[in-house]
This record gives sequence, structure tokens and C-alpha cells, in this order.
Amino acid sequence: KMIKQLLISIVCGAAMLTVGILIGHYGITNAPSWVKDVVRDVDESLIEKFLSEVDNIQIQENLKELTKVPHMATTAGDEQTVQLMLKRWQDPESGLDQAWREEYLVYLSFPDPKNPNKVTVVSPSETVLHTAREKEKSYTPDQDDPAVVQPYAAYSPAGHQRGRLVYANQGKPSDYLLLNQTVDLKGTIAITRYGGAGRAAKAINAAPYGVIGVLVYTDPLDINDGLMSDANETYPHSWYMPPSGVERGSFNTHYGDMLTPYLAAKEETYRIPVEDITGIPPIPIQPIGFEDAYILICELGGEAAPKEWQGAFNCTYNFGGPGFKPTSAFNNRLLYKFHFNVVNFYPHLQFRSAIQINNIKILNDVKLDIFNHEKIKNSSNVMGVIKGSVEPDRYVIYGNHRDSWVHGAIDPSSGTSVMLELTRVLGKMVKQGKWRPRRSIIFGSWGAEEFGLIGSAEYTEQYFTKLSERTIAYINVDIAVFANATLRASGMPSVQNVIFKAAKQVNAAGLESTSVYDNWIKYSNRTSPAHGTIPRMGYLSGAGSDYAAFVHYLGITAMDISYTYDRSKTNARIYPAYHTAYDTFDYASKFIDPGFVSHQAIARTAGNVLIRLADSLVLPLNCSDYAEILEDYLKTAVNLYQNQLQVKHISMGKHPLKRAVASFRSAATHLDQVILSSDLANETPLKVRRINDQLMLLDRAFLNPLAFPDKYAFRHVIWASSSAGKPTFPGLADAYAKAESSGQPRDWDKVHYHLSVLSQAIEGAANTLVDVI
Amino acid sequence: KMIKQLLISIVCGAAMLTVGILIGHYGITNAPSWVKDVVRDVDESLIEKFLSEVDNIQIQENLKELTKVPHMATTAGDEQTVQLMLKRWQDPESGLDQAWREEYLVYLSFPDPKNPNKVTVVSPSETVLHTAREKEKSYTPDQDDPAVVQPYAAYSPAGHQRGRLVYANQGKPSDYLLLNQTVDLKGTIAITRYGGAGRAAKAINAAPYGVIGVLVYTDPLDINDGLMSDANETYPHSWYMPPSGVERGSFNTHYGDMLTPYLAAKEETYRIPVEDITGIPPIPIQPIGFEDAYILICELGGEAAPKEWQGAFNCTYNFGGPGFKPTSAFNNRLLYKFHFNVVNFYPHLQFRSAIQINNIKILNDVKLDIFNHEKIKNSSNVMGVIKGSVEPDRYVIYGNHRDSWVHGAIDPSSGTSVMLELTRVLGKMVKQGKWRPRRSIIFGSWGAEEFGLIGSAEYTEQYFTKLSERTIAYINVDIAVFANATLRASGMPSVQNVIFKAAKQVNAAGLESTSVYDNWIKYSNRTSPAHGTIPRMGYLSGAGSDYAAFVHYLGITAMDISYTYDRSKTNARIYPAYHTAYDTFDYASKFIDPGFVSHQAIARTAGNVLIRLADSLVLPLNCSDYAEILEDYLKTAVNLYQNQLQVKHISMGKHPLKRAVASFRSAATHLDQVILSSDLANETPLKVRRINDQLMLLDRAFLNPLAFPDKYAFRHVIWASSSAGKPTFPGLADAYAKAESSGQPRDWDKVHYHLSVLSQAIEGAANTLVDVI
Repeated sequence: KMIKQLLISIVCGAAMLTVGILIGHYGITNAPSWVKDVVRDVDESLIEKFLSEVDNIQIQENLKELTKVPHMATTAGDEQTVQLMLKRWQDPESGLDQAWREEYLVYLSFPDPKNPNKVTVVSPSETVLHTAREKEKSYTPDQDDPAVVQPYAAYSPAGHQRGRLVYANQGKPSDYLLLNQTVDLKGTIAITRYGGAGRAAKAINAAPYGVIGVLVYTDPLDINDGLMSDANETYPHSWYMPPSGVERGSFNTHYGDMLTPYLAAKEETYRIPVEDITGIPPIPIQPIGFEDAYILICELGGEAAPKEWQGAFNCTYNFGGPGFKPTSAFNNRLLYKFHFNVVNFYPHLQFRSAIQINNIKILNDVKLDIFNHEKIKNSSNVMGVIKGSVEPDRYVIYGNHRDSWVHGAIDPSSGTSVMLELTRVLGKMVKQGKWRPRRSIIFGSWGAEEFGLIGSAEYTEQYFTKLSERTIAYINVDIAVFANATLRASGMPSVQNVIFKAAKQVNAAGLESTSVYDNWIKYSNRTSPAHGTIPRMGYLSGAGSDYAAFVHYLGITAMDISYTYDRSKTNARIYPAYHTAYDTFDYASKFIDPGFVSHQAIARTAGNVLIRLADSLVLPLNCSDYAEILEDYLKTAVNLYQNQLQVKHISMGKHPLKRAVASFRSAATHLDQVILSSDLANETPLKVRRINDQLMLLDRAFLNPLAFPDKYAFRHVIWASSSAGKPTFPGLADAYAKAESSGQPRDWDKVHYHLSVLSQAIEGAANTLVDVI
Repeated sequence: KMIKQLLISIVCGAAMLTVGILIGHYGITNAPSWVKDVVRDVDESLIEKFLSEVDNIQIQENLKELTKVPHMATTAGDEQTVQLMLKRWQDPESGLDQAWREEYLVYLSFPDPKNPNKVTVVSPSETVLHTAREKEKSYTPDQDDPAVVQPYAAYSPAGHQRGRLVYANQGKPSDYLLLNQTVDLKGTIAITRYGGAGRAAKAINAAPYGVIGVLVYTDPLDINDGLMSDANETYPHSWYMPPSGVERGSFNTHYGDMLTPYLAAKEETYRIPVEDITGIPPIPIQPIGFEDAYILICELGGEAAPKEWQGAFNCTYNFGGPGFKPTSAFNNRLLYKFHFNVVNFYPHLQFRSAIQINNIKILNDVKLDIFNHEKIKNSSNVMGVIKGSVEPDRYVIYGNHRDSWVHGAIDPSSGTSVMLELTRVLGKMVKQGKWRPRRSIIFGSWGAEEFGLIGSAEYTEQYFTKLSERTIAYINVDIAVFANATLRASGMPSVQNVIFKAAKQVNAAGLESTSVYDNWIKYSNRTSPAHGTIPRMGYLSGAGSDYAAFVHYLGITAMDISYTYDRSKTNARIYPAYHTAYDTFDYASKFIDPGFVSHQAIARTAGNVLIRLADSLVLPLNCSDYAEILEDYLKTAVNLYQNQLQVKHISMGKHPLKRAVASFRSAATHLDQVILSSDLANETPLKVRRINDQLMLLDRAFLNPLAFPDKYAFRHVIWASSSAGKPTFPGLADAYAKAESSGQPRDWDKVHYHLSVLSQAIEGAANTLVDVI
């Protein structure tokens, strides 16, 4: 019994001891509470929840709300959207932690509603023979809104020019060069079609030849797959551009406010004299519809233009005499011929022409009367924030512009309606206490993008320091849905992985059992040495949307995400209502994304990427994928340039560029190895922070503010824009093209110089990735 | 009994439970081991130990070793010092974790030992009437070392120039302007004295007036407190410069390798054409001793120069006729007069002059025969590292150059001998496992500083990225001891606090019961609104030593520390043996720091600062002290410029500059409050990291690569060099001075522009300090 009692006592004692140890160890924790927080990783179930809550109908309703009225930058309609964003982001149930507006006083350009710009055909005695449409034809009430701005070329100088018309194809330097070999361009007005060259470039390239004015239109070949009749072919019968549709646009080559380069455009900021502005048209330019372009081009005299210059019109595109053909209705009294042509396509024009029947003389001119005026106006960004819990000093930024040219259902409101749905779902989780991201998330609704990415550029200028120091990545979703076929994603190679991961978790629009990823790979793919066949990502080498300042000025890892075309079904340059008065809710919901399922797929994909960037313990940025693209660029550069450079005694064989790319590869491999072999969830949080800092700062390392003295705010030596059109390092390609064309030793020196700049930048990026000491 | 047993059981059970809880809680720790490490702060007892181990005799022995032979950059003597540094830093008992060399191919300039540069007085028939000394007179065996380089002006072009001599004071623009009002400078040779203008500037300023060659010497007034006889006054009788002593130097205005601007000078790096180099003398220039200058100046004709131009010679400094006076021994046969003058001061010269007695003609010239040649040579930095334990990705950098002009006992070997003692003490602690700093420490022994801070500049160009990303601070100790009176420290205002703290813990050299701090405040102090009377720190606004690239190119918080003069005892521009063949161990140990106690005080002070920067949990950088100086600058700017700017319609009253300084102050106050009110030793280590990142990046925020287009590698808008000489923002002061002098509206525009640049930079810095989201 004693023994039994003793045994019981021992067992009980042992049990108490064990219980005690367990309580002591687990019950009274002596690890600080933050130990668990700092190593928490992304929560996959939260992502599932997010995906399931993203609602296509909400997006549709957002779009309806956003597109009620035209909301061109700084107009009353724009202010309505500012208020809408603020209301949503400050909503106590589904808003963000904070939302506010930031204002900039920026230099914009507008037509004069009281003196609309005019394009006319006039006789020597000033009789008007033809007047191009001033506003687009109305098919839905949207086009009748008095706030629809007349089509114009923002930043075209005002002026009254009159001259013989010529056809200059796309207005590229080579186009004017060729044209000038046949026609003396001095004093002429050139008509050009969109595409091939930037908007402003069509005028900038023309001026040196003495051209005094430029017209630009969208050829049905380039936008409508050749179709051009609004009787049954174009909107509202299809997504195609109606004959009177005109692409508006900003005609400048730089981005950001033009009067305050590199400075945030605040009230007392120094502004350069207007005459110092570069990169805008030196001569008046005006966009017109193809309905009017047809009338002008088909009457042109002179030799027939080359085959590649021909568009979709049922006439030969001639160079111009200069001016109209001798037999043209504009040049003699054989008006019936003119009528005959036009009536074929546009019976409704008969009346308009008929009233201009009197006083027709030979050798008539085209006349531009441009009344544009520039104005410094107050443009707002709307900013919203979800504060990070563990690393509030790390930002993931998600943005899109808010301003449109007219109603902007697709550009930009498809993106804005997606952003509002994202913030609704995320905001609700935050407000309900179900989630707070590890890192801070900043949402930006940029103003005045259409005038040259102004809102986002000013923001990066004002907050340059802290954005450079702290930003993990920038996600841009501008036009969310160009078309409803497949995902399109561009960005730094390091983001490929996280976009793929997100795309695999989201259903493709309208395809229940196919992922966005599986659908994407069918439309566009490439073979990666490391990954085999994968979807093809694009690069952000231009300044096409608000990612520009983040990529090129700040060196922040960025991406641009959208849904896009089935290229087997259309060759349209872009969705045909782009920048016209037809880019409306009606258009979007009928022809771009009925049911808003592509919008939903984009919201889910971009939101998934956003959550992963904000919540992952180790940033989901892959530096080895970056190495792959640098190797690709290097290979192309060696193929294209090595032999010729050898002749110029610039060796690429043993050149530092090769060593730099090899350094980058080995540093990337090593960092990947460190990540793989570490138990980061149990090591000091300063280790994962260190690795994440290396990944975050990778793109910053490629910046060199002196690399491109002639390219405003382009500092990223890998992704800068390039005119050489080669899939390799942009500065090298441009320097090589220039040297090859000039043959000047100083230009070959610049090739060598750029090789050094490039090598040092890539070595610097490699240094960011190798062991920190 | 049962009850008793039950009670015993309960008591035992409770006891076991308690023991269990205690074991469970304290015995089996469930806090990861890194929890303690990441919050560890600086260890004061370790600092005590460090201070006690710093040994003056070791420093003395280091200096002896370093100064055995001349070690001008890239010479055999330089290589000896490279080997010495490597040996010490790789020592298994007292070395660093790692040490290695880094090489750059840099553009240097040397005289030709086979064709020494000559300065002569010649007659029209080319008879040489006087030849300036080619090498300094020997007083100790050191001067006889064949490796002593002939005094020369590095980067002076080679050439043979001959012309009438004029005296141009310090060679400032105002000096030549004034001189030219009296004398036609075309074709003349100008003799100038050191001081007032940069070395190269004396030639650059002269050339526009047609001056064809320049001489430069050190006037006894400026260096020797007027004394000039080597019979009993100058070295080896005192620290004063002997009559034949010549200050060598680099005659360029930029820093870094001149052929590879902004690029590390590696073998295949692109090099600009030599003819594109700017900032070097366009005409030959040569330095001479005051012994020769005396002979030349006292014979000059023309009007007497103004009072401020007069030096210590016992004659009137005339402008020059141009050329010598009609009565001069150089111009007529009255040689006795010439003898008479000279013999007064230099009896030994009698013989040298006597042999030139023949063929003396009137109106003689001074002739410069300069045989300098430029060469691309391999220069080494020696780098050493102690790897950080907790934050290896944060660097504290400590550096000094290694190259001298001759033996360089003071410049730079006083600093190098201090650095070697520092690394010995710290290295031993590391090797013995007694210490490993929280952050990494990098030591740099820079090459080719004397030619233009080349080694440090190339290093920052090569490692720009990672240094920008990770460097906490740079400590420069070049000339450790100018003299043995008091500490001198310059740096960003944020380092004041840690220097004060360190200086309070170190005994002043030779004063047992007075701290370095208490001694310092007696020699130089100011009244701070926040701290009352405190020692006066200097600023690093020039490019006087290797801190330049860190401050101005990288925007890294930096400081420069040394021991210096009692200004009540000397007015010497600098210690008199500076850049001469007399800067030897003998000189240093006899006249600069007998007993090496000032060296020791510097090693202790700088080492203390270094340990605090490397080990403190919160970085000891005080942003409120920065605010104080910005407010000071603002006040001066308002006083100097506000009224006149108002006339030009540039308002400072409501200007963003005032708002920016106020933003900075309130952000600094707030950050200080956050630090004070936090329990950082118990909070997540990511919080202290965040605060430290804010402090680390503060100076980076002031960089603007476009702020000073005319100043090579100056980007820090607060500390850039300035020619206006006003204690305020440099770019503003220079822009204002220019506008005031030209009166051009475009120049007033630039003042406005710079106000915007400055405001945006200060706002950016404030943004770095405010709450991170």
C-alpha cells in the first residue's frame, strides 16, 4: 500500500511537474509578442477569400458611376470623380485607413469652346469648300454631353496656317525624308495617320522640312480592320470606330508637368519660361476623323505613295501635288466627281458638301485654324493608404489615373472601377479587423495622366526621397480591359514569378475551368532557359502610362496589368474607341467586356499580386529571372554589335559588360540559394529584412541620372526608351545606331562610354544582390 | 491521517507544479536566441577597454614604419605601405576579418626626374641670371632620399614660357582684375602666393588676361608667422618652413580620376579625351620656395602693390613693371645691390649668385621650363572589414588616404598610424572573440588622394549602389594632428552629439584631468539655442579630403576629425611642413606631437565614435541638431536676400523654403519624441531598424544630381562648395551672387529655381524623418 501510495504520489508529482512545465513553457510565454508577427507569411486562405469576394457586378456599377459625365483633367467632371474616390476610400465600412487629395498646379492645353478649331479646304479667295467635322457624330446621348471636348491636339500651338496638302504616311522622319524627295514640302500642310511615331513627333519631324501644319487621323486599316461604314460596321454596331471618331491626345514627348521639370508643381515652384519647353509641336497640328481624312486624301494629286503608305480607303493614297489633283472637285468645277466618291461611303455628307458648291477655284489649300490655349490648372491626385502592421515603412503602391479625354469608360475608368473594387474588398477586411498587411499599401488615383502622366510624375517628384527609400513595387492597372481574350502583363523580369503565381489562382474570364495563366500561355508565350514554355511578359521601356515615373525616374520595380486582344481576330492598334467620344459605358459593357468578367479577372489577378507583395515574408521578386533577361539582352548586343565594335577597337569579347552580366547572374543564384537554405521563419527578422532590402533596391541600382542626358527623366539604364528598336540595352542600341549613321569618332566614343555606364550599373545591381558584407 | 496525507500530496503537487512552471518558463526558453541579440546596445565597458588599450607608442612606431621612405601615389614607396597595411590587417592576432586591395588605373601627373622643371631669370640673350632651387635643402637624411619628388604642380601642362614677371598676390579673380588695371598682363609671368584661391585657380584665373605662366610660393607671413631664416628660426630649429621648402600639390578643381568622370577607372572603362579635361591649369605653373620668391619679388618694378598684398619680405611688393625695376640687379650691372639684399637673409646664397655674374643685361625675363607629363598608373586602395553580427548590411566606414607627396609624416601618415592603432585594438578584440560589432565596419586606406581624392572617389563610383543603400556614416581622419592644442571636428550637424559624447570620455592630449571636450570648448565654441555653449563644429562644404565623395556624391553622413592649433600662438595657414620634404617623422615627433599624445587622443575619440556608430541600438545621429543648422542658414538667407528678392518678385516671406525648414524641424522633433517614448529594447527590432533607416538616409535626401550642373560631383544641396562665402545654403548664395553681379533676369530666375530645388530637398529630408506612413 505504501508502495502503491508512493507510486501514486510519484506519478501525481510527475504529472504535476509536467503540467507545470507545460504551463510554464507555453502558458506563460517569455517570448515577446512581436516574435510571431515578424515572421508571419502570406495567408493563402485570405487570398482565397479575397478572390471570392471580388465582384463583377460591383465593378460594373463602379464603371457606370465613373462614366456618368466626361471627366477630363481639372474639369467639373474630374472633380466629381475626386469626390467619388474620396467617398469610397473614406467609407467607414469598406474604406482605407486614410484618404486625401494632393494638388498640383500644372500646365495644360485646351481648345476654345467659343472658337472651335477648324480644318477647312479653302479657295484662293478664302471660300470654304469643305469643313471637317468639329465634334464627333452622336449615336448615344453620351456624345451630346456639352462637356465632350472637341477633338484637339493638346499642346499644339494655336495658329492659322494655310497650305497645299501632302500625305506623309505616319509622320516618321523616314516618311518626311522620302516625301520631300518628290514634293517640296515648304509651306505645305501634311496629313498623317496615327501609328509608327509619337503624336508630337509627327509635327516635330515635319517642321525641319518647312511643313507649316499637320493633320492626323486614324486610318481604318490601323484601327478598324479596314471597316469604315457606320451604316452597319462601326459603333454602335460593333466595337469599331465610327467615321467621325477622333483620337484625342497629348502631343508632347516628355512626361510630367512641362513647366516644372524635376520639381513638384506647387504654387510657388519655379516655372521655366514657356519658350524653353521642348518636346511639343513647333507647328499647329489637329486630329480629324477618317471620314474627313478620306475626303482629303482621296483628292490628293502627285505621285502614288508607296505600298506601305496605303491605308484602307478605296482610292490610291498619293503624295499630293502638293495639293489636290487637277481633276479634284476641290480644284475645278467637276463637283459631281467629288460627290460621287463621298456618297459611296457617306451618303449623309451630300448635304454638307452641297452647300459649299459656289465659287470653287483651282489649286486650293487646306487651312488650319487652331485656337488651343495653355493654362495652369489645379489637378488632384487622390491618395489612400492601408498602414502596414509589421513593416509600415515598406510600401506597395497600386495606381491608375482618374482623368479621361471624354467619358473614358475603358481609358482609364476600367482600371479605376477595378481599383475601387479592390479597395472595397481589402478595405472591408481591414475595417472588420480580419486583415492588416505586413507592409503598407498606397493607392494612387492620378490626375492629368492624359496630358503627359502629370499627376504620377509630380507625386514622384514631391516624394522622391521616401518613395525611393521604401517602395517595394508599383502596380499599374490603367486600361484594365483592352479586350476580353487574355491577360497581358509587362514589368521588370523580377515580377514575372508573382504574376504567374497569381494568374494560376484566378479563373480566366468566362472560362470556368481554365486559369488566367493557362489561357495566357496559349495566346503569348516564350521559351525560358530556366522555366521552359511560359507566358511572355512585356517590358516597361516606354512612358505609356503612370508606371513611367516609377520605373524610369525612381527605379522602382513595376508592372502593368490588363486584359487584351485575341490577335488572330483583330489588328487594331488599340481598342477602336480609344480617346474618342465613344469610349462610354455603353461601349464597354456591350463590346469590350459584357458581364465584366475580364474586369473581374484583372481585379483578382492584380489584387492577388498586391496581397503577395504586401504580405509575403520574403518578397516574391525573383532576381534570377532578371538575370535571364539581361543575358538575353547581352546575347543580342553581342550578335548585333560585337564585330563592328571590334573594328572600332572597342572590344566586347573581354569587355566588362560580359563580366557584369555574369556577376549579376552569379549574385542572383547566390541570393536565391541563401533564401532557399535559410529557415527565415525562425531566424532573426533582420535577416529577411536584409534580403528583402536587396530585392527591393535591385532596380534602384540600375539608375544613372547622367546616362541619358537627352531623355527627360529616363534614368534606368535597362528599360529606358530607345529609338533603335532593338531588343537589347537601350542606351547602347541608340548610341550604336547614331555612331553607325554618322560615322563620327566622337559618336563611337559614346558607344564605348555607354558600355561603361551599362557595365557599372549592372555591376552595381550585382553588388546589391551579393552578400551584404 | 488521510487529511494529512492529502495535504502533503496537495502541497507536494503544488510544489511540483510550481517547480514545473519555473523550469518550463525559465529553464526551457522558448524565445529564439536572436531575441536578445537584436536589441543589444553599445557596451560602455567595452569602450572603456578600447580607450585604455589605445597606445601612443604603438602609434609612434606605426608612423616610423610608414614614413621610412617617400610614398607618393603609385611609387615603390606607396607599394611598401600597401604591403604594410595588408600585413597588419591580415594579422591572425590583431587583424580584421578580411583585407584586400582594389586597383584603379588613374590619370596622374609627374615631373621628369631627367629633365627637372626649371625656373630661371634670363637675359634677352638667354643668359641665366638666376636659377630657382630644384630640390629642397637637406637638413636630415630624409631630404636626401632619391625618391623625394621635385616640387611641382601636378597637372600643370608642360611648356616653356618666358615673360616679364608680375606679382599677382593670391591669384584670385579680383587680384588679376586689379593688377591688370595697372599693368598689361599680356605675355607676363605672374608670381602668386598660396592662399585665398585654389591651386589651379591661380592659373585658371590668370589665363584670360594673357598671362602665360604662373609661379606660386608660400609667403612667410602666411605660414611662418613671418619668420624666414634657417639659421635659427625655421626647421630643424622649429616647426616653421625652411626657406627652400615648397608646398607641392594637385592643381585641379575637380576630384576623382579626371579621365573617367562618374565611372570607376578600371582597365576598359571609357576615358574622355585628354583635351576635354576641365578644371586644370591652361598655362604652366610651378611652385617655388620663398627663398627664391624673395629674390624675384623684391626686385620687381612698377607701382607698389596694395597693403593687403604685402607679405613678410623686408621689401615692398611691387606689381612689376612688368618685370624687374630698372635698378634691379637683374636689369643692370649693379649686382652689389642684389647681393646686398639677399645676403641679409641668406648668406649662403652669395656663391650661387656670384657664378651668374657675367652677361647681365637689362629688362630680363623669368623663364619656366616645365617637363611634367601625365601618365595612367595603377593606384591601390587597401580595404579591410569587420563583419557586423546583427546588421551586417549596415556599414560604418572609416578611412584615410595612404599616399603622401614626400614622407608625409603628418599628411597623411599621422592619420594612417592612428587608423592602424585603431584596427589593432579592435582587431584583437574581434580575434579574441570578445567583440563583434552590431554593424559592419569598413576601413579604407585610399590611394592617390593627393592627386585629387582619387582612390576614395573611384571607390564610391564603383560601389555607389551598395554604399548608398547601407552606409550609416563615414569617419575621415586624414591629418590626425595638425598641432597639439585642441580637437577640431567637422561634419554634418547630426554627428555633433556622438562626437561630443566621445570627446567627453577622452583625456585631452597632455592634460590628465581635462577631457578633450572641455579642452575643445575653450578653444572654439558657439551658443546653441538647444544646448547653450558648446564646441563649434565645422562643416564639410569643400573637397579637402576623402570625405568629399561620401558627402557630396553619395550624401552620406560624414565627419572629419583631427587635433589642431592654438590660434593664439600661430597664424600659419596650415602646419608649415605641409606637402614639403620636411614633413617627416623627425618633424612630427619633435614639433607636432612629441610623445604622440595628441595622436592618441584622436585615436581614442575617433575610435569611440566609431564603436558607438557600429554598436548603438539607436543610431547616435541627432536630427534636431541638423534642424538647428538649417534654421541658422535660413535666418542668414532671409537677412541677406529677402529684401532684394522681394524687389525681383521672388517672395521669401511665404516661400516654401521657410515652410520646408519648419517641416524639417517638426519632423525632427517628432522623431526624437518617438525614440524617447519607445521602449526599443523590448519592441520589435523592425521598429528600431526603421528609425535607424530614417536617420541613415537623412543626408541622402538632400542629394540632387541636377542642382549644380557646373560643379563636378557636388549633389548635396546643403553642403556643396560655394564661392559666395556666405554662411548659408550654397546654391542659393552662389545664384544670388551671380544674379546680383550680372543683373540678368535669367540669373534672377536661377535664384528662384534654386529656392525651389532647395525647398524640395529639405521637404524630402523632412519626409524621410516623419512617420513612415
